Amino acid sequence: MKNFASMQPSDIREMIRRNELVRPTAGMASGFAQANLAILKKEDAFDFLLFAQRNPKSCPILDVTEPGSPIPQMMAPNGDIRTDIPKYRIYKHGELTEEVTDITSYWEDDMVGFLIGCSFTFEHALLNNGISVRHIEEDCNVPMYMTNIPCAKAGKFHGMTVASMRPIPQKDVVRATQVTSRFPAVHGAPIHIGNPAALGIKDIARPDFGDAVTIKDGEVPVFWACGVTPQAVAMATKPALMITHAPGHMFITDVRDEKLGVM
Amino acid sequence: MKNFASMQPSDIREMIRRNELVRPTAGMASGFAQANLAILKKEDAFDFLLFAQRNPKSCPILDVTEPGSPIPQMMAPNGDIRTDIPKYRIYKHGELTEEVTDITSYWEDDMVGFLIGCSFTFEHALLNNGISVRHIEEDCNVPMYMTNIPCAKAGKFHGMTVASMRPIPQKDVVRATQVTSRFPAVHGAPIHIGNPAALGIKDIARPDFGDAVTIKDGEVPVFWACGVTPQAVAMATKPALMITHAPGHMFITDVRDEKLGVM
Repeated sequence: MKNFASMQPSDIREMIRRNELVRPTAGMASGFAQANLAILKKEDAFDFLLFAQRNPKSCPILDVTEPGSPIPQMMAPNGDIRTDIPKYRIYKHGELTEEVTDITSYWEDDMVGFLIGCSFTFEHALLNNGISVRHIEEDCNVPMYMTNIPCAKAGKFHGMTVASMRPIPQKDVVRATQVTSRFPAVHGAPIHIGNPAALGIKDIARPDFGDAVTIKDGEVPVFWACGVTPQAVAMATKPALMITHAPGHMFITDVRDEKLGVM
Repeated sequence: MKNFASMQPSDIREMIRRNELVRPTAGMASGFAQANLAILKKEDAFDFLLFAQRNPKSCPILDVTEPGSPIPQMMAPNGDIRTDIPKYRIYKHGELTEEVTDITSYWEDDMVGFLIGCSFTFEHALLNNGISVRHIEEDCNVPMYMTNIPCAKAGKFHGMTVASMRPIPQKDVVRATQVTSRFPAVHGAPIHIGNPAALGIKDIARPDFGDAVTIKDGEVPVFWACGVTPQAVAMATKPALMITHAPGHMFITDVRDEKLGVM
């Protein structure tokens, strides 16, 4: 098997474009930021951009394509959001209708693509600081929960914040907060430390999305705003057409994780 | 004279609303963030928001009003951008046509207001760190220069970055960089340290906007992206109608400077 971790982002995108790599992208092009994707028609794009601007912790925008252009100029000038993601989901009026590996045939002249920060970047930063990430250890998806924290509304878009949870040893909680604070472009600092009930979460062992993970004695559940929020909110408003990446199948950018650090 | 520095933002806005305070706002409601204002019609708002998103150092967005609403929900929920600024400028097709103290009669149902971060916040942070700010000492406007650094384009909006300059003693340059890095919402870290020619500035003694200030022996010219950039860029595109604050006559928000710090 190729060592995808050491490959350049553009080489991996090229393989994905040729449908030679239909699989989750975690671990590929190590050190480069990966991004969530949401594509909407221009008529919804202003409200969605405004929603993201008002909810920067759950919806940190990395790039927005010009209406009709599939090229993310800031994050990957030779990329193409129609082909460079391994698997897409097509939603019509809020319903998932198809999963496809290429959306060229769905592309229209008034579409706008949003690349949104992904927690892979801050997870690398945690690992680099010697703080392990449980769902990576347990080789499953991060547990995610609907919270009682409302997002700031914008036009038709409104809803509750979705949070991801990582159990952190008590001694590392301060460091984990500091490390992730450096990366506001990928969700940034935690939104809550310690008490699931304070977020309206009834059973930490039953996440709303993703997989449950082990919380060991002496570990504290720490919650971060999650990139599933904008998709969940957009779904709830049932736009005529919305296209996203399939979970875990991200857009690999040309921008190094560390370049997204504020200091 | 009233001590405007110790008044609450909402009380000052109330006086401004009654036209009892038609003067620059520097020093008022000390500790609270002030903001630049740009109002555009909805048809231009998406491109302008996108322009700001792509140029966060010169155009850090603090709040965007819902189309047709004059209320900045995030920064001053009981404020009104039609009345709460001491002096406005009306631009038609890129030409300044009027200065007024109230824009209620100009307001239309499809207008969108943008509050943009202002350097007052990071200047307070510099002063709090014992780093003096020359144009405050000399009681004049900050010197501003057109640079050779292009902004990232968005739709019809494009142009060069405008930079403000503050002379900083050599021994304080690192600290000044650190202190302002904490405030990305108000232009953040410098864009250049030391060499005006590298930015295409021919004569540091002749700023393009504002006033020249003294640069003493042992001081280094340090440049920050400037909030005049979005206005200059918007003017250059000559929108049918654009309304801004008059220079120095800012919108006073309910949000404390320190709340805009990332850490």
